Amino acid sequence: MSSLFLRTLREDPADAEVPSHKLLVRAGYVRRVAPGVYSWLPLGLRVLRRIEEIVREEMDAIGAQEIQFPALLPRDPYESTNRWTEYGPNLFRLKDRKGNDYLLGPTHEELFTLAVKGEYSSYKDYPVILYQIQNKYRDEERPRAGILRGREFLMKDSYSFDLSDEGLSESYALHRKAYVKVFDRLSLRYVIVSATSGAMGGSASEEFLAEAETGEDTYVRSESGYAANVEAVVTPAPPAQPVDDKPAAQVHHTPDTPTIESLVAFLNGAGLGREFTAADTLKNVMVKLRQPGSDEWELLGVGVPGDREVDMKRLEASLAPAEVALLEDKDFAASSFLVKGYIGPGALAANGVRYLVDPRIVTGTAWVTGADKHDHHVVDLVVGRDFTPDGTIEAAEVRDGDPSPDGRGTLESARGIEIGHIFQLGRKYTNAFGLDALGPDSKPVRITMGSYGIGVSRLVAVIAEQSHDESGLVWPRAVSPYDVHVVVAGKNEEITAGGEKLAAELEAAGLSVLLDDRKASPGVKFADAELVGVPTIVVVGRGLADGKIEVKDRRSGEREEIALDGAVAHLVGVVRS
Amino acid sequence: MSSLFLRTLREDPADAEVPSHKLLVRAGYVRRVAPGVYSWLPLGLRVLRRIEEIVREEMDAIGAQEIQFPALLPRDPYESTNRWTEYGPNLFRLKDRKGNDYLLGPTHEELFTLAVKGEYSSYKDYPVILYQIQNKYRDEERPRAGILRGREFLMKDSYSFDLSDEGLSESYALHRKAYVKVFDRLSLRYVIVSATSGAMGGSASEEFLAEAETGEDTYVRSESGYAANVEAVVTPAPPAQPVDDKPAAQVHHTPDTPTIESLVAFLNGAGLGREFTAADTLKNVMVKLRQPGSDEWELLGVGVPGDREVDMKRLEASLAPAEVALLEDKDFAASSFLVKGYIGPGALAANGVRYLVDPRIVTGTAWVTGADKHDHHVVDLVVGRDFTPDGTIEAAEVRDGDPSPDGRGTLESARGIEIGHIFQLGRKYTNAFGLDALGPDSKPVRITMGSYGIGVSRLVAVIAEQSHDESGLVWPRAVSPYDVHVVVAGKNEEITAGGEKLAAELEAAGLSVLLDDRKASPGVKFADAELVGVPTIVVVGRGLADGKIEVKDRRSGEREEIALDGAVAHLVGVVRS
Repeated sequence: MSSLFLRTLREDPADAEVPSHKLLVRAGYVRRVAPGVYSWLPLGLRVLRRIEEIVREEMDAIGAQEIQFPALLPRDPYESTNRWTEYGPNLFRLKDRKGNDYLLGPTHEELFTLAVKGEYSSYKDYPVILYQIQNKYRDEERPRAGILRGREFLMKDSYSFDLSDEGLSESYALHRKAYVKVFDRLSLRYVIVSATSGAMGGSASEEFLAEAETGEDTYVRSESGYAANVEAVVTPAPPAQPVDDKPAAQVHHTPDTPTIESLVAFLNGAGLGREFTAADTLKNVMVKLRQPGSDEWELLGVGVPGDREVDMKRLEASLAPAEVALLEDKDFAASSFLVKGYIGPGALAANGVRYLVDPRIVTGTAWVTGADKHDHHVVDLVVGRDFTPDGTIEAAEVRDGDPSPDGRGTLESARGIEIGHIFQLGRKYTNAFGLDALGPDSKPVRITMGSYGIGVSRLVAVIAEQSHDESGLVWPRAVSPYDVHVVVAGKNEEITAGGEKLAAELEAAGLSVLLDDRKASPGVKFADAELVGVPTIVVVGRGLADGKIEVKDRRSGEREEIALDGAVAHLVGVVRS
Repeated sequence: MSSLFLRTLREDPADAEVPSHKLLVRAGYVRRVAPGVYSWLPLGLRVLRRIEEIVREEMDAIGAQEIQFPALLPRDPYESTNRWTEYGPNLFRLKDRKGNDYLLGPTHEELFTLAVKGEYSSYKDYPVILYQIQNKYRDEERPRAGILRGREFLMKDSYSFDLSDEGLSESYALHRKAYVKVFDRLSLRYVIVSATSGAMGGSASEEFLAEAETGEDTYVRSESGYAANVEAVVTPAPPAQPVDDKPAAQVHHTPDTPTIESLVAFLNGAGLGREFTAADTLKNVMVKLRQPGSDEWELLGVGVPGDREVDMKRLEASLAPAEVALLEDKDFAASSFLVKGYIGPGALAANGVRYLVDPRIVTGTAWVTGADKHDHHVVDLVVGRDFTPDGTIEAAEVRDGDPSPDGRGTLESARGIEIGHIFQLGRKYTNAFGLDALGPDSKPVRITMGSYGIGVSRLVAVIAEQSHDESGLVWPRAVSPYDVHVVVAGKNEEITAGGEKLAAELEAAGLSVLLDDRKASPGVKFADAELVGVPTIVVVGRGLADGKIEVKDRRSGEREEIALDGAVAHLVGVVRS
């Protein structure tokens, strides 16, 4: 440490909010260069490389083959799949000296597909799994939390290419197992949640979320073991009801009731002979959507029970890849049939506006909703009798206590950080590039793909987030920058020489050692050892005169004095245990 | 090989000119994605990683510490050193979603300097050597020869930080030794040449050039061992002569003699009583230069002996970082005192135009040169009597047979490919960012830097360039993608099983094995083995029935039949020899 390029900091960086960010900067693992863009100092790079190597080993173990694409990519392949446009401002775009368009790869589906198309032709070539571990670029709107959400970040991305859906399922299962092994080896606490596909389009999809209160991803789980991304929660629909036994719909004059709350209060004071709650009302939220590459906005009505808000993230996930926005005043002005605060299914149907409703709004249910006339609502409007929606949509918020989609128990929400994503991509990209294999019958077989990612640099922060205490970082052995941290606690020559000798012997025994041979005080050195977080700390101090050294377990805080004689074998045992 | 992501090609790629490019593509090591932008397929990535690891080991051995900077960099630091502008169109520039300027790092002097400034403060912290192995980006005007000159390429760049010039010399010497070890381990044939600093500014500088006829860099060497970049050749100046004993200058009417050839012919026919050669004439070439960041062009006259051309690369190196261009017609029109074809030192001096001459043009030498008047030249114009240049410049071409600058022997030219560059950068960047150490006397000491680079991905091509034959690649053992290539030559079960068993045993003995278990014919397999270039090829074929296999040395072509019994030990010996 007397020559290591490392200076620890006493103060948290001003821009840091989450513990991993604070500690990785304070302990000298990373340094900020620009928003979401970081340098790796020696300790950080060692941890990053160890994680990378674990990921590589588990990918190799399932027969995946490593290749490497450039980060600087031409526009053409991304134009073919429309992602040049779809990615919007998240994509770093640039021009070369000749004015040709390039991008910094945010993910490489196009390149992998083209690579396989370039090399392979026969069904005998398949299946194949290819991967790379490479820097990716995304121009995040709000880069945050240090390396947790960076704009340049290291990612393992792999892609499977199969002849059939069954093959894809097998490749997917292989990845799922490999990911479990990786994250288990990293000692992470995580859940595997069902996920929507987001902007990727496709079928089966699961996310690996590390448990973390500071996480950006909200997910829900039930006691049954069910876990899902909020965007992926499928609302159980109640059974349909008969429509004939319901009272006829009646329009009421409901002055000054543009909100659900005011409406319920009015109804309950209107002497209608029954009690209303917000859950009896049908709230119609107007949005507009635009398909990728299109300039035209389409109106859409979204109906949800009045006791729930529309969750924009769920709505967006349901409508992806279309862009969604709430209506502005000028939109209302342009569509005068929309009576703000009193919109009902009637005007939407009459004006050809598509109308999608929450799955709870089933045939035979009766609702209080807008009558398309200022200060008027309609009561007992029955689905399947008085109006027929164009379909259902997952847009309503999910709440703690909602029934679990698997029918067992109720949902509660938790927060996590996405560390991996596995995804049955299907034929989106093979269709775009016409990737076929010549089958045994000489007929072309369209290849189907899986896409699988692990955020390698993010994992450094995630592990730090799950594994620290008030004194500093506490690395799991598998990724610690060193196996043992030897602190020379004392300035006399004997102690210094003893520390150096022990460090050399430990290295000769195959351990990696961080030797604190600085002239600083023992107090400073102990504090830095706690901050840096190597799991085993060895103190060579006064006890050396009696042939004793101290071994401290960084995680438990337990200390034991052991004989110098045999210390190497003891420490090898501790590290390899 | 039955599942390896590899398809060899029979035809050379259409855009390939040099052998390494043809072979690396044909043998399935790399694939082109865009001009100067390549993907690494499994075999190529293995070679790249092995070279990277050798570089890393030798850097670690001199105490250099590995860190990693981002490739995506903010404009600010490069603005501070003016390189944002100086780099011109070679720099990839881009904007983020907020409109802030970024660049893709072509080299990281700024970041390293700022990193050291961020962490270090005392003289006790120094010296330090930091390095990274990272993708770099340069928008080359003519990316060529596959990965030999790419626009995205892997480079090891290191920087030394020292308190004194002596310290810098030591750090420089450490790097020089490490580079020699790296290139020796890679079995390269190379020379170390004196180099100019190019656009970097600084003092001692040497380039490591791999010998290659296809190389872009021309260098010269003499029998004495002297070797230098053509741009770095210092012309030995002859001794000055007395000016008094020369005849007076005379202006002659020399009709129709705008070229040196026509002038010499005219003079020799003019009855002047002596013989003239082109070497007696002084040719004045007009250029204009523009300093970085400036909009103004300055005129410059360059005088060279008439028997030599101006070498624009040498001229540019002498004038760097200024931009240089030959005068166009409109420039001549704007400076009417320049009489094209008859320009002499007189008009330049009279009009305040700077005038630099070749070092051979010393005081007391007499020249035939332009008289600044159409169809007129002046004879016996003597330096130091009739005109005085503003200084000397290295601009004249260097020719085979020129005296060596070390005074021993003569120069001959050769071609090479730059594979490494070591360079005493000095204080350019530490001045720009004010990087000081607090000295023992509490006074600030300005740090001095060295800059050292190795083109890691380029080395894959350079080794291929030096090490191939008409059948394919021939890898040195240290970087071969595999230690042994086992060819199963035959389709019966016994041979297949025998090949698989041998491959497994070799792997168990610690060798890496490429097993050709494809169903292809032996001829196809042999051809592919030659093309792929693993140094030891083992053929398991009919001889297996008699307990024999064949071992072929790829480089020498020698084959020997050995007993299967003991083959593993034998092959381990061959590989480790």
